[in-house]
Amino acid sequence: MGDPPEPVIDLGDAGDPDRTVEAQREIDYEMPADRLDEQQPQCPFGQAGSCCDICYMGPCRVSDDDQYGDDRGVCGATPGTVVSRNLYREIGAGVSSHSHHARESVELLAEIAEEEAGDFEIKDEQKLRSIAEDIGLEADGDVNEVAKAVADAAMDDFGPGGETLNWLERMPDSQREVLDEQGLLPLSSVDQQAARALAQTHKGNDSDTGHILKSALEAGVADGYAGLTMATDLQDVIFGTPSPTDATAHLGVLEEDQVNLAVHGHSPQLSEMVVKAAEELEDEAREVGADGINLVGICCTGNELAERHGIPMAAHSLQSELAVTTGALDAMVVDIQCIWPGISDLIECHHTRLITTVDYVRMEEATHIPFDEETAMEDAKKLVREAIEGYQDRKRRQKYEVNIPDRTQEAMVGFSDSAILGVLESIDPENPAQPIVDAIQAGQLRGIVGIVGCPNPKMREANMTEKLIENLLAADVLPVVTGCIGHIMAQGGYLDPDRVDELAGDGLQELLYTLGDAAGLDGPLPPVLHMGSCVDNSRIGNVIRAISEGSGIPVQDLPVAASAPELIAEKAVSIGTWALALGLPLHTAPALRIEASEVVTETLTEDLKDITGGYLIQDGTPDGAAEQLIDALDERRAPLVDADIEAEAGTAD
Amino acid sequence: MGDPPEPVIDLGDAGDPDRTVEAQREIDYEMPADRLDEQQPQCPFGQAGSCCDICYMGPCRVSDDDQYGDDRGVCGATPGTVVSRNLYREIGAGVSSHSHHARESVELLAEIAEEEAGDFEIKDEQKLRSIAEDIGLEADGDVNEVAKAVADAAMDDFGPGGETLNWLERMPDSQREVLDEQGLLPLSSVDQQAARALAQTHKGNDSDTGHILKSALEAGVADGYAGLTMATDLQDVIFGTPSPTDATAHLGVLEEDQVNLAVHGHSPQLSEMVVKAAEELEDEAREVGADGINLVGICCTGNELAERHGIPMAAHSLQSELAVTTGALDAMVVDIQCIWPGISDLIECHHTRLITTVDYVRMEEATHIPFDEETAMEDAKKLVREAIEGYQDRKRRQKYEVNIPDRTQEAMVGFSDSAILGVLESIDPENPAQPIVDAIQAGQLRGIVGIVGCPNPKMREANMTEKLIENLLAADVLPVVTGCIGHIMAQGGYLDPDRVDELAGDGLQELLYTLGDAAGLDGPLPPVLHMGSCVDNSRIGNVIRAISEGSGIPVQDLPVAASAPELIAEKAVSIGTWALALGLPLHTAPALRIEASEVVTETLTEDLKDITGGYLIQDGTPDGAAEQLIDALDERRAPLVDADIEAEAGTAD
Repeated sequence: MGDPPEPVIDLGDAGDPDRTVEAQREIDYEMPADRLDEQQPQCPFGQAGSCCDICYMGPCRVSDDDQYGDDRGVCGATPGTVVSRNLYREIGAGVSSHSHHARESVELLAEIAEEEAGDFEIKDEQKLRSIAEDIGLEADGDVNEVAKAVADAAMDDFGPGGETLNWLERMPDSQREVLDEQGLLPLSSVDQQAARALAQTHKGNDSDTGHILKSALEAGVADGYAGLTMATDLQDVIFGTPSPTDATAHLGVLEEDQVNLAVHGHSPQLSEMVVKAAEELEDEAREVGADGINLVGICCTGNELAERHGIPMAAHSLQSELAVTTGALDAMVVDIQCIWPGISDLIECHHTRLITTVDYVRMEEATHIPFDEETAMEDAKKLVREAIEGYQDRKRRQKYEVNIPDRTQEAMVGFSDSAILGVLESIDPENPAQPIVDAIQAGQLRGIVGIVGCPNPKMREANMTEKLIENLLAADVLPVVTGCIGHIMAQGGYLDPDRVDELAGDGLQELLYTLGDAAGLDGPLPPVLHMGSCVDNSRIGNVIRAISEGSGIPVQDLPVAASAPELIAEKAVSIGTWALALGLPLHTAPALRIEASEVVTETLTEDLKDITGGYLIQDGTPDGAAEQLIDALDERRAPLVDADIEAEAGTAD
Repeated sequence: MGDPPEPVIDLGDAGDPDRTVEAQREIDYEMPADRLDEQQPQCPFGQAGSCCDICYMGPCRVSDDDQYGDDRGVCGATPGTVVSRNLYREIGAGVSSHSHHARESVELLAEIAEEEAGDFEIKDEQKLRSIAEDIGLEADGDVNEVAKAVADAAMDDFGPGGETLNWLERMPDSQREVLDEQGLLPLSSVDQQAARALAQTHKGNDSDTGHILKSALEAGVADGYAGLTMATDLQDVIFGTPSPTDATAHLGVLEEDQVNLAVHGHSPQLSEMVVKAAEELEDEAREVGADGINLVGICCTGNELAERHGIPMAAHSLQSELAVTTGALDAMVVDIQCIWPGISDLIECHHTRLITTVDYVRMEEATHIPFDEETAMEDAKKLVREAIEGYQDRKRRQKYEVNIPDRTQEAMVGFSDSAILGVLESIDPENPAQPIVDAIQAGQLRGIVGIVGCPNPKMREANMTEKLIENLLAADVLPVVTGCIGHIMAQGGYLDPDRVDELAGDGLQELLYTLGDAAGLDGPLPPVLHMGSCVDNSRIGNVIRAISEGSGIPVQDLPVAASAPELIAEKAVSIGTWALALGLPLHTAPALRIEASEVVTETLTEDLKDITGGYLIQDGTPDGAAEQLIDALDERRAPLVDADIEAEAGTAD
């Protein structure tokens, strides 16, 4: 590390001159940015949220603003009803995706507890016991018994439905109380909560805008705990909790003379076993003439593998097709989420083997090799062998030149909640919240912003994420990132400790050096902290909880905010909704699809502040967004600067 | 009965001269048909299914046909991916709505079993025991124990998920085997299946069109059993299984000098208790000067109350606003589904009290009075008293003239599966399937078509339902109807036995007289059999099952089909999908939103026939639709005519 990073050129950009892109164009394959161009102009009604296709009397266009539709749908639905229902369904899709993800780990933990998952084991017993304690279970005793109790409690959250979601115990106390008082706690079955998002928005069910938004918020809370937090919790238990580690990012991590195997998706369950299988089959790769097996990660699997093993982060989701166009990728193994259908078209022209592994995620042109817990190692070996065969195909009959871009960037990743709290604890063993409170009071730290989500081709040309983050850093705001934003940061050199002086304001510089010292590093922490995959947004929640409970400051009074500066996925909408419920200001770009309803816009941007403390900020420019986020942080920071917070913390204890 | 019915003039029509409509226009209130006009032209992309708003790179328009969009979305999604995902989400909304409905009855039965639901009881113990036996439970012994076991088995189907859906045992054996062989059985948790519809269609999950359609079909099966069948089953157990009864239909059932209380929605749980409460509070109504309490039903609640109590069927869902504009309605109590938001606007100008009762269904301008099992009678009395107060308001300060249309029509309703099979059994006690097989072989019965769904203002002007059904009747096809189609039929006089000679072909006439005689009626059965509310489509499934299992003819070889001639709701799409999975030809109008994908269109209209036996027919004209349905029936009937089916039946036994 330490070399100045290359300029940020994103291979997903429309105008990118990269030769890999050229190679791709030669085979008449459209890039995402080309396809975005082809789709112009995109539907303004849909973007304003005014389109209702919930029944066959429609589609209707319903809006407070004439340009986006009439004032009522055929059924009489108001703009508020239409916009809030659409939003609720987006959140429902997010919570169902994340809870499906979490369920995988629950089932695996249950099998481990029964000693029926031979090749998997419990890596972080301490975290297992701490979760058990947190959700009110017996935390001592035989590890398998504790694991079984935790898995049972987690599975209870999938129905049929009891008193409350067990995983709500993982929420900051002060904010859970706020939501409880406001009647905003979710259903006790996360699957029912997802189904509810559809049932409640079915034609002729709920038409009360405020009530629909309330339920939508509840669905976001369900996602935060029975989705994100449960997934990260159990993944850490099974695969280990990450700690800071170095990794290399960008497509240049592919190796011409090795078997290049990319694991793409979100579930460490698959990728962790592939890591082991690739190690075991290294000799088989050498036997066919390869220099070895080069396992790389794409999208959130890239984050999961980097944060636990320092495995190269080859590409974010927008670059997943480019990875194929290098001609060097011998197999792409995918599990769940953010796997672009465009890969199927591309695979027809390349030797790359595309393999799906999860029953509910299939792709055209792909081979499906089911990945089961019981036969995990065997299945993983099949996948690796597909890559080895792909390598042989490549060497035998290369149709396109291998064009691996000469781009790599070193990055420090793996700042899990435990890692961050560990650093703080080494400064103040009594109360890890105190160093953060001190930094806020000393003016070193203006606030923390969790910056999450995907790279959206609508925002990539403007480098929205990089510019927003540069603005925040310069203003002494600490950005913590997850998901594909983590890849953007890694590729752009923002996870490089050596860039602290260049990027961070004076106060933040001081803090990062102090923390780096406490972490035992030979220098500062990196200017941006990479906290993991997109389910690992839960880690941000855990850090906020620790600061809130440790300082006695309610979450909604902390100078903390969230941003999805290149929002794509419904998952991101539900994550954002969780942030709103948690009491955080939330920025998104592109704007949420709410413009067609004044009531929804007012509720989310203004009224909600008095309910949960959270509210929505919409701004599509990096300068405007930064300004609004900094204002939001300042508003919360001001009362804290002179407060006697140590005393509060004492009281809280 | 017996008077020639009035001409079918539907109050939902745009050009209807009815004075109630005029009264409504005077207060500048838009009719559904007006609103439909205002929405013209409606989005052709949405209607073709080419609109994808699943992520914020969109909305995209993706179609095989240039006029509906480009060939790929920004993510590379194909028209097949986009169209199949949209369809799957519609079905997901249907299954979640029906399973939410079913869950209410499961919870109520569990409480009854525990003797914790004081005012509810088990009305049909025989049906309870027969369900228990059918799903493999101990069916003898204490009734509460059987009820508890049945409720537990039902609740198991809501998650977290085990081996299989218990309620699949209610499927015809032959078709369950077909689906099992094809890998088309649903998940074991219906809530997860609904959540799956969202998770699987989330950006970057399933993009394999065929696989998405397969899953969509599974969701339809889940709806058929853990939605429709479970709901009807347990409602019959708790409230009694319907038998033929007379009821009066149309808005003329409102009474100027009585307290007019309409119950609107779908759940007998609410409406049955209101029936009792209204009886008990009759004196209170008289004390304030009313001639009594006139309880009427709207939408499927109308069907539920009519089939069990002969209570008047005031209006279908499209007429629900008109019911308010009469100025005579003192309260409208609603529970779930098909409650048009337009009622809220209207209520502002009328004395009518609008009351919501279910937590996830709220309306603007409504009072929410929660209806709980434990306090059911007390709650129901509150609702009735609201109506009595509404009556007093009306008499004190009538703002608009009371205009009750002079329209009523007598109808015979209540042909539950048990009632129909009972009639057949009285002809052939050994095998109730035999009289149907005999009628098919004798040329009396060309086939049976289940005609279901809502009144869609797009099709009402053309009287699509009435004309389709007239065509079928003339061709010796027996129409069985549910839901708001039941209201259309009742209002149009199609449920009047005296019209058999006029409407039915010669063969069908003979059959209806034979059946009427067997039923102990003084004449034929009515030309169209009213089988109940929309969840009671399960009754059609039960009759098909009994015929199939009793005759040994697989469902997909029976001359039976389904039609949703005025499709509105996502619920109807999932019901239709269940019909396809059950092996039935399915007609819909308006067309399902699949035109943008050739693959989806071919799969559903052709290829599916070789998989489940079912396939899709799209035709927006009553003549074309009838012709295609009759062709479909004939194709299945032909091989049966000369077959030795009695022998087959013997084998099956």
